[in-house]
Amino acid sequence: MPDATTEAPLLGHEVLAAVLQVRAGSLQVLLWQRAREPHMHRWSLPGGRLRLDEDVEHSIRRQLKEKVDVRQLAHVEQLAVFSAPDRVPGPRMVASAFLGLVPSDNDPELPEDTRWHPVGDLPETAFDHQAIVRRARDRLRSKLSYTNIGFALAPPTFTVSALRELYSAALGYRVSATNLQRVLSRRGLLEPTGDTTRPGRSGGRPAALFRFADRGMQVTDPFAVLRPPAAKSR
Amino acid sequence: MPDATTEAPLLGHEVLAAVLQVRAGSLQVLLWQRAREPHMHRWSLPGGRLRLDEDVEHSIRRQLKEKVDVRQLAHVEQLAVFSAPDRVPGPRMVASAFLGLVPSDNDPELPEDTRWHPVGDLPETAFDHQAIVRRARDRLRSKLSYTNIGFALAPPTFTVSALRELYSAALGYRVSATNLQRVLSRRGLLEPTGDTTRPGRSGGRPAALFRFADRGMQVTDPFAVLRPPAAKSR
Repeated sequence: MPDATTEAPLLGHEVLAAVLQVRAGSLQVLLWQRAREPHMHRWSLPGGRLRLDEDVEHSIRRQLKEKVDVRQLAHVEQLAVFSAPDRVPGPRMVASAFLGLVPSDNDPELPEDTRWHPVGDLPETAFDHQAIVRRARDRLRSKLSYTNIGFALAPPTFTVSALRELYSAALGYRVSATNLQRVLSRRGLLEPTGDTTRPGRSGGRPAALFRFADRGMQVTDPFAVLRPPAAKSR
Repeated sequence: MPDATTEAPLLGHEVLAAVLQVRAGSLQVLLWQRAREPHMHRWSLPGGRLRLDEDVEHSIRRQLKEKVDVRQLAHVEQLAVFSAPDRVPGPRMVASAFLGLVPSDNDPELPEDTRWHPVGDLPETAFDHQAIVRRARDRLRSKLSYTNIGFALAPPTFTVSALRELYSAALGYRVSATNLQRVLSRRGLLEPTGDTTRPGRSGGRPAALFRFADRGMQVTDPFAVLRPPAAKSR
């Protein structure tokens, strides 16, 4: 019989979320400021301990409720497990980290200790939370290239020019509106609503409004050429 | 002060790996047969308990060593956390699941209790291991479409026809060799070695040999058109 304390230790398990939104032209993350040691005054990701009666997906949604109206989360997915033995001081704690996305037309009410911070200009963060934010940003950037995840950053309808601003902020470089429209339309992700912006709203001609064809995650398969004929139709 | 037993429970944490390989024309997974209750005689994924002095990545590599020569793993990545409260009988146990890939030219020596099983025709599996195998298969299939992950299924050099067999087995449908070569070459993933198979080996003309340009994971960005000019060159 192996020694249970070294062979089969019991550990704490916490869930954490990097909730991202494009705000004021930059990709931002929701952080709250710690009021206690350890890492007092540093900025933390929302989350907390996993309970015995819930899985990590239920736990993160329950805990995010304390910080933000979760109906405003258009997408939540597992990001990775962060499990370095020394990631937090004191007893061992493993973290299941999530990526959450809020569309740009929402402005959730926040508790007093909580604020949005540009991902590219973070304040002093607690524990390994900066690494988690970077991982979330990288996941979002990758998924913008091979999925329809843009739906979770965008309002229900938008002009191509507004969408270009969202993609540029999330990707961290200037995207061409023409290329963006071409790529997304070719993949069947984008469809015109048939409406336009009201004339004169932006001082120019009315612009066509678009929406994402699906508002649930799908891999937009550039390998479609390899798919069996039955699957090609969608 | 909240009640520590409900608010901040200590849990067991295990790591599990779905190690996949294309063998005899089908995608197969490495399973070992349990010799003890619970779920005696059912087939399980390799893995075990996380130790206090290791993170999940070190733990899975340590534990896989007991089943398979880990030098034969061309790729290992985190898959997901499986955390349903009742996923195993007895005390609560959270699992960090991994995907591992073995190139088709390896034939690892296995312990007596361990065998390859076709993913599409699994024996009776223990706990939630069938769901983990399915998730691993789906992750591999997705990544075949938007990354160069084929390198981890293929031998160092191969004919397009051999690569087509690997992709067809992993994807679960027949892939066209012409399309496969066109897609992978256009993305710069595939390069000719300059060599050919020996004449007559397959009873026909010698076939050109190829290799993957990189044998480390990269997202093969179909959105390259959106990249800044500096990044386009690679």
